[in-house]
Amino acid sequence: MKSPIIVDLKFPPDAVAKALAGAFPGREVINMAEPANAGRDLSGIEYALVWKQDPALFELAKDVKAIFSGGAGVDHILRVGGLPEHVPLVRFVDRSLTDRMSEWVVLQCLLHLRQMPAYLRAQRNRHWEELAQPEARDVTVGVMGLGVLGQDAARKLKVMGFHVVGWSRSAKALEGMQTFDGDGLNDFLAQADILVGLLPLTEETRGIYNKALFAKLKQGGPLGKPIFINAGRGGSQVEADILAALHGGILGGASLDVFETEPLSANSALWAEPNVVVTPHAAAASDVVALMRHVEGQIARHEAGLPLEHVVDRALGY
Amino acid sequence: MKSPIIVDLKFPPDAVAKALAGAFPGREVINMAEPANAGRDLSGIEYALVWKQDPALFELAKDVKAIFSGGAGVDHILRVGGLPEHVPLVRFVDRSLTDRMSEWVVLQCLLHLRQMPAYLRAQRNRHWEELAQPEARDVTVGVMGLGVLGQDAARKLKVMGFHVVGWSRSAKALEGMQTFDGDGLNDFLAQADILVGLLPLTEETRGIYNKALFAKLKQGGPLGKPIFINAGRGGSQVEADILAALHGGILGGASLDVFETEPLSANSALWAEPNVVVTPHAAAASDVVALMRHVEGQIARHEAGLPLEHVVDRALGY
Repeated sequence: MKSPIIVDLKFPPDAVAKALAGAFPGREVINMAEPANAGRDLSGIEYALVWKQDPALFELAKDVKAIFSGGAGVDHILRVGGLPEHVPLVRFVDRSLTDRMSEWVVLQCLLHLRQMPAYLRAQRNRHWEELAQPEARDVTVGVMGLGVLGQDAARKLKVMGFHVVGWSRSAKALEGMQTFDGDGLNDFLAQADILVGLLPLTEETRGIYNKALFAKLKQGGPLGKPIFINAGRGGSQVEADILAALHGGILGGASLDVFETEPLSANSALWAEPNVVVTPHAAAASDVVALMRHVEGQIARHEAGLPLEHVVDRALGY
Repeated sequence: MKSPIIVDLKFPPDAVAKALAGAFPGREVINMAEPANAGRDLSGIEYALVWKQDPALFELAKDVKAIFSGGAGVDHILRVGGLPEHVPLVRFVDRSLTDRMSEWVVLQCLLHLRQMPAYLRAQRNRHWEELAQPEARDVTVGVMGLGVLGQDAARKLKVMGFHVVGWSRSAKALEGMQTFDGDGLNDFLAQADILVGLLPLTEETRGIYNKALFAKLKQGGPLGKPIFINAGRGGSQVEADILAALHGGILGGASLDVFETEPLSANSALWAEPNVVVTPHAAAASDVVALMRHVEGQIARHEAGLPLEHVVDRALGY
């Protein structure tokens, strides 16, 4: 008999219920969003799919052998705590999630390259004036974080003509692209006209996009001042420093999909910055149907005796 | 001795003068923007580089053997008239021009796909709300016009994940893409969630983007209503019909870089349409330095006895 799966996803409940309707054929699903499942005996169950799970979940689900994250990042799961130490935690990796993230990243890079904030202001004033601008090949995009998402975004940015360089914590060789790692950060930043943040949130990356980092970005490049784009995690950025850098002429603009506190407070000055684009953590929403498909695939691997993929290194936090 | 070249470009004169400074080594340049050259004897000169040239130019320059267009389109040159009939007219084709056009086209397609007009409105209202949206692979972009620009844009849209189909006057086979031609227009339009116009302006294409055409675009696709994007020529669109289609729920939005009359009048209702992006014929500005390089290359071919490239078919008008 197939082991049941516990589902504790703090997503819109209707979307989860709908996605579960056709998922996990032949396997019992214990959806913790249903009141009837509160306090239920979860011993003996091997699988759990979670996102911002109940902190006490794994006191009840003592026999879980694999934990699946509902999102690409796992910081929200690790922060809750209480995870059994030696049970593999699997990240959500999906073609759809990757494609959507690259759509958003390429869109934001092109939007700043082609001066859309200034053109949209001119449009509101019914003002016709062509602005000088470089082409993509003269602009260097530095992608910080070279996991599945960073690699796909970098590849597509290259096709669009940008000169692309990458940085990751540990060395990664990507074809046709200069990459930096660890201590190479300063050399990487000195090249970047546009910095794209696609880092996981870990102890090391908390607050990494700060005053000191912005000061190391290339000044006087073809865009004049560097642009900061973050689609990773809001905890990696210091919003007071972004505002100070914009006002102090260190940054020329930004596109932010993630924030220190979400939803972004209506009082935040970021909403009204002229060259800042704010989107509501919507760059690459987890498609819940795709998530179920991914988890089914990983369980099938596991039950066929194959190793799980995309397992998080708990010491690194991603 | 090298034949001189006549330059009659109605571009910003400083940009032309600057680009000419290092161009055409060993060849005399007769820049008609210089008052001293007015009324000068131009007989015996073999080359002319023109854009919105003086209507009487070719009465003076009787011996020209090749005419080079300052832009990718030649409608502004043919409209002036007075061109010697059997002299080849060469379009401006350039990597830089092509890349810039694709930047703009991909940017506008992604901008509508990712609902940026709605998100930017929400930002102005400091309102945090994620909007439902399809991903690129569920959206069909129809590229109308499959010349150098249309083919490059189509290829890059495909890399970004869009499903892409193409239409051109005469049949063109493009790898990995369904193409239509001539009478296949209605079938092509019925598939398009986003229509990208990259047609030259000719007798056949004047006013082609009109009420009747918009009514044939796909309705009820993943974007709800179709989007119209024009980066070809303004003379191909009927702006009253665009506005009526937007107000009548036939079109969901538009991005327009070209207009029936340019600059677009401050009175045009297009400026203030909520889902319309207006840019000032800036999608792919002719880089004057690249233009000189292109003309030098073509003259070198010609003088080496090779055929000129990108020669316009006068009967077709492009």
